[in-house]
Amino acid sequence: MPSSPMPSSSALDRPGATLAAIHAQGPLVQNITNFVAMDLAANALLAVGASPAMVHAPEEAAEFAGIANALTVNLGTMEHHWVDSAEAAARAAQAAGRPWVLDPVAVGATGFRRANAQRLLACRPTVVRGNASEIMALAGLEGAGGKGADSTVGTEAAVEAAGDLARRSGAVVVVTGAVDRVTDGTRQATCANGVATLTRITAAGCALTALTGACLAVEEDPFLAAAHALAIYGVAGEMAAVLAEGPGSLRWRLLDCLYHLQPGDLDMMARLA
Amino acid sequence: MPSSPMPSSSALDRPGATLAAIHAQGPLVQNITNFVAMDLAANALLAVGASPAMVHAPEEAAEFAGIANALTVNLGTMEHHWVDSAEAAARAAQAAGRPWVLDPVAVGATGFRRANAQRLLACRPTVVRGNASEIMALAGLEGAGGKGADSTVGTEAAVEAAGDLARRSGAVVVVTGAVDRVTDGTRQATCANGVATLTRITAAGCALTALTGACLAVEEDPFLAAAHALAIYGVAGEMAAVLAEGPGSLRWRLLDCLYHLQPGDLDMMARLA
Amino acid sequence: MPSSPMPSSSALDRPGATLAAIHAQGPLVQNITNFVAMDLAANALLAVGASPAMVHAPEEAAEFAGIANALTVNLGTMEHHWVDSAEAAARAAQAAGRPWVLDPVAVGATGFRRANAQRLLACRPTVVRGNASEIMALAGLEGAGGKGADSTVGTEAAVEAAGDLARRSGAVVVVTGAVDRVTDGTRQATCANGVATLTRITAAGCALTALTGACLAVEEDPFLAAAHALAIYGVAGEMAAVLAEGPGSLRWRLLDCLYHLQPGDLDMMARLA
Repeated sequence: MPSSPMPSSSALDRPGATLAAIHAQGPLVQNITNFVAMDLAANALLAVGASPAMVHAPEEAAEFAGIANALTVNLGTMEHHWVDSAEAAARAAQAAGRPWVLDPVAVGATGFRRANAQRLLACRPTVVRGNASEIMALAGLEGAGGKGADSTVGTEAAVEAAGDLARRSGAVVVVTGAVDRVTDGTRQATCANGVATLTRITAAGCALTALTGACLAVEEDPFLAAAHALAIYGVAGEMAAVLAEGPGSLRWRLLDCLYHLQPGDLDMMARLA
Repeated sequence: MPSSPMPSSSALDRPGATLAAIHAQGPLVQNITNFVAMDLAANALLAVGASPAMVHAPEEAAEFAGIANALTVNLGTMEHHWVDSAEAAARAAQAAGRPWVLDPVAVGATGFRRANAQRLLACRPTVVRGNASEIMALAGLEGAGGKGADSTVGTEAAVEAAGDLARRSGAVVVVTGAVDRVTDGTRQATCANGVATLTRITAAGCALTALTGACLAVEEDPFLAAAHALAIYGVAGEMAAVLAEGPGSLRWRLLDCLYHLQPGDLDMMARLA
Repeated sequence: MPSSPMPSSSALDRPGATLAAIHAQGPLVQNITNFVAMDLAANALLAVGASPAMVHAPEEAAEFAGIANALTVNLGTMEHHWVDSAEAAARAAQAAGRPWVLDPVAVGATGFRRANAQRLLACRPTVVRGNASEIMALAGLEGAGGKGADSTVGTEAAVEAAGDLARRSGAVVVVTGAVDRVTDGTRQATCANGVATLTRITAAGCALTALTGACLAVEEDPFLAAAHALAIYGVAGEMAAVLAEGPGSLRWRLLDCLYHLQPGDLDMMARLA
């Protein structure tokens, strides 16, 4: 078993401290995620020095949540018995005082997704991360839109919904888009890092969710952890885009850049406010 | 919800019109596909500007088929309850007048695969895509062969089987190989684009099936849509092969080239007849 | 159906003969593996010229095991009904005289994993491959450790456990790490090829397990087959690392190098003893 990481607290504009803590502690992050995202999410965690574990079977998901330093639950391609696993794992994480992240992929698209998201939301996630359409749909707003897993509105439109959702659920809410937004219902932060081509890579958002889990494992303030995950991922994406020739090369260069990104450079390139 | 795409009709040797329509309309393509193919299929769709949705749960597959602009069903790694999903989604797509593609991976290998393929074939796919061994097995021919998902015969051998299958099923039938063949039972087309190394990338055929779904969403004649998908994929593969150093680099370069491919260049490089 | 490969026997320090036999025979390798590993495992097999088949449904797994030249079973993300499939496929492989490999991913982490591994071990695998923590946990040793799928101890520590496990189970046991170790309970071999960055690629070990299946299909001595798989994979990894810029590029370069690796160069670069 890994030794329990020692959370550190850092300022909003110093994401390097969180990255350094991941490097030093190598947190074990359990992911109940979708079939498309597993590869990229696991590789993103490995690239920053965390240990990914894709553990979702009903026979072991809750047991493993007692071992892992953080849990992430992504509703992209849920099987019915995985929803039970996810609920049990989320409760186990909460009981053990471990943070967990909910990613409500395409929650507005079908009744099954809405029901799954409501069940998981009731288990009190530490962080909820989605695009504007997803966060608006989760907050119960009309006209949330969304085209499958893709948002049809900008993050501006979801600011109010995010605040409502944060206050009602007790979670830090992250809305990703051209400018990412984070709120705990009181504090607000934005992250202007990242590149648009990332939306042409499947599961790019899901991998960010996994990375958010790693940040939560080492930074005790979930508002800071969520903001720092956005900066780490966005800066690595910007570095990768410099040399990438398209979405195919952006994908592997993103992993190379996550691997090479150093805390000092991250602090310099982060655009958090 | 996406606005319903307006199908356009174009000539066989002008696949650029179909690619331009995908760029303009960004169709939502639902895929019930295998665990190996999900990543590449979703990334291929994103690269050309379509929106992929991997939705296969029995609780939502048919509901989502009413939203999507096209559906693709791939039998590579079916779970028993996914066969029910696929059947329900195919019927929902048909009821909504939406096109759908069937990919009978390794259909000759086991009784389970043969039974699944027959069930889906009865739901009247718009297009069936397979390699020569698969199409021959599906048409009920003896000696179809096949080594797992790989064909053991050339596409020439499957011409008669493809015609029979097309006339019997009402589907456009695509046989992929060194020279790809398309038939609706009356018309015949060939596509000479592509490179042999693509067969060394797992799920390369499955990603083509997904792309065929995107073409069907924007081109109302399924015979043309299927032929144009072959040209788009084959030309991108040829461009990728110029710089690729092996199957690992061919895979990501294929995505980069799908992303950069422009309608005018496609028309120039396509070898459709 | 593929023609039945003709096993050849070769010396420990001549892995090129095994690679040449894979090139010549193109063995069909069935894999019941985890959701994260399927893509890389299939691509690694294709890169060396084998035919991968991801077949795990209860309705067909055992039937297919009668067709395939080798079977690999990886317990990374088992669904409960896949454990039944794996057991049936393993028994079918054994009944047909075909070799099979067991990969007990993170076996020490949960009771479900321990139970699954014990069930499969009872089906007499030809080869068991794991990292030091996994082999020690499987051998029933205390303090095996492990952080999810990552080992917390070196391969030295697992030498005794590997020997015990080999003698008790009748399997050749492979322990991978900085220096890989192979034993059949009597003979011992080491392989010093490979690079540490491979541990930053998810499913890198699982892909080696798949490759071990290909080697077993063409080399009748499982001790040699297992050692040669280590050399093929390790040498390709070393070649890939020369040009790789991080784990993202190492992954696709590994596939390119597996594709280009020639028997003569392999013999020259292999560090087997």
